[in-house]
Amino acid sequence: MNVEIISIGDELLIGQTINTNASWIGSELALRGAKVSHCAVIEDKKEAIVDALESALKRADAVIITGGLGPTKDDITKYTLAEYFNTELVINEEVLNRVKAFFERRSRKMLDVNIQQAALPKSAIILRNDVGTASGMLFEIENKTVISLPGVPYEMKHILTTSGFDFLVHKYTVSNLFHRTIHIQGIGESYLAEAISSIEKRLIDNTIKLAYLPSPGIVRLRFTSTPSEASKKLIEDAITEIKSLLPQKVFGEGDVTLNKIIGDILIEQKSTLGTVESCTGGQISKDIVQIAGSSSYFKGSIISYSNDLKINLVGVDAESIKLYGAVSEQVVKEMAINGRKLLDVDYCIATSGIAGPTGGSDVKPVGTIWICVAGPTGCNAKKFNFGDDRVRNIKITGLTGLNMLRQMLLKINK
Amino acid sequence: MNVEIISIGDELLIGQTINTNASWIGSELALRGAKVSHCAVIEDKKEAIVDALESALKRADAVIITGGLGPTKDDITKYTLAEYFNTELVINEEVLNRVKAFFERRSRKMLDVNIQQAALPKSAIILRNDVGTASGMLFEIENKTVISLPGVPYEMKHILTTSGFDFLVHKYTVSNLFHRTIHIQGIGESYLAEAISSIEKRLIDNTIKLAYLPSPGIVRLRFTSTPSEASKKLIEDAITEIKSLLPQKVFGEGDVTLNKIIGDILIEQKSTLGTVESCTGGQISKDIVQIAGSSSYFKGSIISYSNDLKINLVGVDAESIKLYGAVSEQVVKEMAINGRKLLDVDYCIATSGIAGPTGGSDVKPVGTIWICVAGPTGCNAKKFNFGDDRVRNIKITGLTGLNMLRQMLLKINK
Repeated sequence: MNVEIISIGDELLIGQTINTNASWIGSELALRGAKVSHCAVIEDKKEAIVDALESALKRADAVIITGGLGPTKDDITKYTLAEYFNTELVINEEVLNRVKAFFERRSRKMLDVNIQQAALPKSAIILRNDVGTASGMLFEIENKTVISLPGVPYEMKHILTTSGFDFLVHKYTVSNLFHRTIHIQGIGESYLAEAISSIEKRLIDNTIKLAYLPSPGIVRLRFTSTPSEASKKLIEDAITEIKSLLPQKVFGEGDVTLNKIIGDILIEQKSTLGTVESCTGGQISKDIVQIAGSSSYFKGSIISYSNDLKINLVGVDAESIKLYGAVSEQVVKEMAINGRKLLDVDYCIATSGIAGPTGGSDVKPVGTIWICVAGPTGCNAKKFNFGDDRVRNIKITGLTGLNMLRQMLLKINK
Repeated sequence: MNVEIISIGDELLIGQTINTNASWIGSELALRGAKVSHCAVIEDKKEAIVDALESALKRADAVIITGGLGPTKDDITKYTLAEYFNTELVINEEVLNRVKAFFERRSRKMLDVNIQQAALPKSAIILRNDVGTASGMLFEIENKTVISLPGVPYEMKHILTTSGFDFLVHKYTVSNLFHRTIHIQGIGESYLAEAISSIEKRLIDNTIKLAYLPSPGIVRLRFTSTPSEASKKLIEDAITEIKSLLPQKVFGEGDVTLNKIIGDILIEQKSTLGTVESCTGGQISKDIVQIAGSSSYFKGSIISYSNDLKINLVGVDAESIKLYGAVSEQVVKEMAINGRKLLDVDYCIATSGIAGPTGGSDVKPVGTIWICVAGPTGCNAKKFNFGDDRVRNIKITGLTGLNMLRQMLLKINK
């Protein structure tokens, strides 16, 4: 299956919005064995849409179009496609009822423009949108498929994962490449490559592809091969070897996240969690509650950003701050240990650091960060420096704290 | 000047890398009055490059190509372009010396493949790369221009800003399209369109384009026109009218964010801020500390996720939770009011809600969320329902809380 993507929107062309939709669709299709060979970003203009669609249909089996399905006047995709496929717009009663229910649930008034969102091309298969008012539309032309989706990432993803991808995978032949991906925290891409160089060489000699996919704080390592049993075995062995080589770093495989993994372990161990954060300002806490059901193990946090709150609310000894500074092993330990009692939890993650871009000194340069995890059997504090970018520091510190907790929970910290 | 962008690289198509290069080029060209009307992402293949280039040259004045200029075997752009423009590769001595110096400065061994990077198309104008080893190349064909650049963002940006953009701006007429963008919180795209329909009609009648750019909790509204004084005046008047129509909703213009705006107001008013969060779990707190310098106004937060912490740490009356439930006006008010005292701040934002996907009841369905802002002159609590997606609820609740604070700070809350 060869797919092309057309992203519609002036905001993409003038760089106001980064085209994350195309990346997401590309990566999801790759996971399903399909290939994206071309992606076009075009203007919200009828001629541009028709030109791009015609070019794409010459080359690809399927074309996925995103954008231009909103209720406002600048959204012209639906009208352009109806004309292109020579069909008329008719009110779809099921969609109309769903749009009505959507507004009722939110106790909001439904407008004429919203009713128009139920007017859909007669010849299209409607792809249900449970999370918004713009339906997906699927057109079949000879042996080719055109899917039109809203540009709102959340709605686009919902429609593709609940119906769009399945339709394509059933209709077309996908290459059955075999993929596995492991997730690694706490080691940079080049150091990882060095640490596993002999394993990587063995895989490459056996035509197994390795891809390093870095993001702040995390590297995903993807293995790709033919679906032969021999290749699968080689990848399995390589993953086992990397896990035993870097048990503190490798935290999961497949479609996982660190916050989800920690939640699962805490539920299994019937343990509870809280955080006392300074430089991360709630980043860790916020990451934890992204997981549905986190209320069963997460009790809460204190974000003691000011020294006053560290002393008055968390009970850090004022003398410790005076002697060692707020960014110190002593203070971060007091934060974590006191946090366990104050929040009445089994485990507490604490952070204190200089996120930047200013506030550093010769002794404690920007980026100096202390993280401590306290648990029933003691605490573990470590010092880091992730550089001088504020947002990146906060993000990486959060992930590192979560991974240190994971290590303590699994008794693999050192 | 009409420009098209061609981004070369399989990593872009399979979503391993997000195409930030195209966004950056688009936004920089827009600032310089040029228009990007099409962007293609293609495979590292000769036919794909030639096809995309031919299509682009039919439509555009200039084509900017990024990617495929590295030293490894999969980098074929230079060879493809040399063949396409019917020219040969010759060693450019100046470039060779620069590449040599580049390796010497880093005390790294120079390889044969690196020497080959000084072999450049004879007919091309070489665009100097001071920060890497792959030169930019500029080809002129009739009145059209093709610029080929390395895909490394840092190198691509360096070459365009030091020579590429200047060349284009001098060669072609730029259209100075005039853009303004305002940011709106707390009203959906379709309601916004209805609220400003008469203003929008007037603008459209005067050929001024309006684009709605929605993201969870926020809609950006972009106005585009010719740079005539009359159009600018019409846009200015429209923005003034929308601001006076929706003062609670319109929070800023241009390159702004809600957390930055609030920080600026708090600094100006010499006031301090804290949060007491339940359902948002630290989202608001984390958003506030993204801003460098937030420690001058942000003191900290209590994330009272469990009822125990609401009672024991925040001092919410156990009786209130028993009578009204944790998700109630009474409880969220106590959280905000007590938070002001506990955190010793002027303003406190509190949240309590059912983020989902489960935990709802008939009386309080999933998505029921209370937000309260307490300040020196009283408090303001409101109930919302943003739907049943957990992550989205947390995000929108956070933005809504920040906007309610903004309204109180500016005394425009109602």
